[in-house]
Amino acid sequence: MALYIKSVENLINEFKKLPGIGPKSAKRIVFFLLKLSHDDIAKLSGSIIEMKEKVKFCSICYGLTEDDICHICRDGSRDRKKICIVEEASDVAIIEKTGEYRGLYHILGGLLSPIENIGPDEIRIPGLLERIRADNIEEVIVALNPNVEGESTAGYLKKILLPMGVRVTKLASGLPVGGDLEYADEVTIGRAICDRREL
Amino acid sequence: MALYIKSVENLINEFKKLPGIGPKSAKRIVFFLLKLSHDDIAKLSGSIIEMKEKVKFCSICYGLTEDDICHICRDGSRDRKKICIVEEASDVAIIEKTGEYRGLYHILGGLLSPIENIGPDEIRIPGLLERIRADNIEEVIVALNPNVEGESTAGYLKKILLPMGVRVTKLASGLPVGGDLEYADEVTIGRAICDRREL
Repeated sequence: MALYIKSVENLINEFKKLPGIGPKSAKRIVFFLLKLSHDDIAKLSGSIIEMKEKVKFCSICYGLTEDDICHICRDGSRDRKKICIVEEASDVAIIEKTGEYRGLYHILGGLLSPIENIGPDEIRIPGLLERIRADNIEEVIVALNPNVEGESTAGYLKKILLPMGVRVTKLASGLPVGGDLEYADEVTIGRAICDRREL
Repeated sequence: MALYIKSVENLINEFKKLPGIGPKSAKRIVFFLLKLSHDDIAKLSGSIIEMKEKVKFCSICYGLTEDDICHICRDGSRDRKKICIVEEASDVAIIEKTGEYRGLYHILGGLLSPIENIGPDEIRIPGLLERIRADNIEEVIVALNPNVEGESTAGYLKKILLPMGVRVTKLASGLPVGGDLEYADEVTIGRAICDRREL
């Protein structure tokens, strides 16, 4: 016999599938939902459906949008000669939050991984090359996560983009602002030494 | 300008309301949902609605049920002379999981709290008294959380139930099984000494 009644058990199982939610959190959430009004429940489940129905991928950069083209690609005030390459659509908000970048984006949707059989065609690199050619892009800023796949994807991009006469840059590696030398790992400190700048 | 498009922002806000989910987890969940199929999304949101529509409170013990009376109150093989008092419907599963209890339950739905103006009538104590009288209950096992409100509610229950000729017991306090003396707090060890049993 199951511990909970069927509809409760079902919902706990659905919530357990979400990232970062284990059996205890799922149970806690479901019993919280049980106490909400029917209106609140309708709002939550409606928001889930609505998001799934409304959200599309921008036909230019593959960012999230409710239209055909996202608000960034449509924004005439942005620097249309720069493209920032990110892995996921969620990374766009991280860069936007800094307020330091006013160019366009291109979302790869993944990273190169020979082991998982993910090559350039699987991660929207052909579309990127087309944009660079068609729009005379001057600089591509690679903003991928600094892990093995990120670095090798960045290396691949450099190799194919440099011959096209594009400037290829990447986010600086170094100490986090407000960080402490003592707590930084050697690789990061090593990078910070190599990438040192004039005071 | 919001960081995310509206439908994504809305859903992040809905998830942030759930217990144990902060802004980062909410964002992570929403971007995870974006990658799910329409079918999976329909299943999740359907399960939420279904649970809310189907789950009712047992008219006897106030436990969760999809019928009028829950499977425990309907179960003829259980000991119908014992009632275990718990705070929340979710506590029933915790007791059931032990396999040590075969009696009935009564869910208070809260604890006495003079500060928050919660008196006996607010937490289904009248219904409990009625059950005890009508069904000739012999023992009431108080399984409330061992905190201030739990202990004072237990004290109140003892005061009104003893004159009714009912045996009133509570869960033993003591060292957790597999626990370590060194890591137990003094109050728990103190209780374990007072409640010591023959070896």
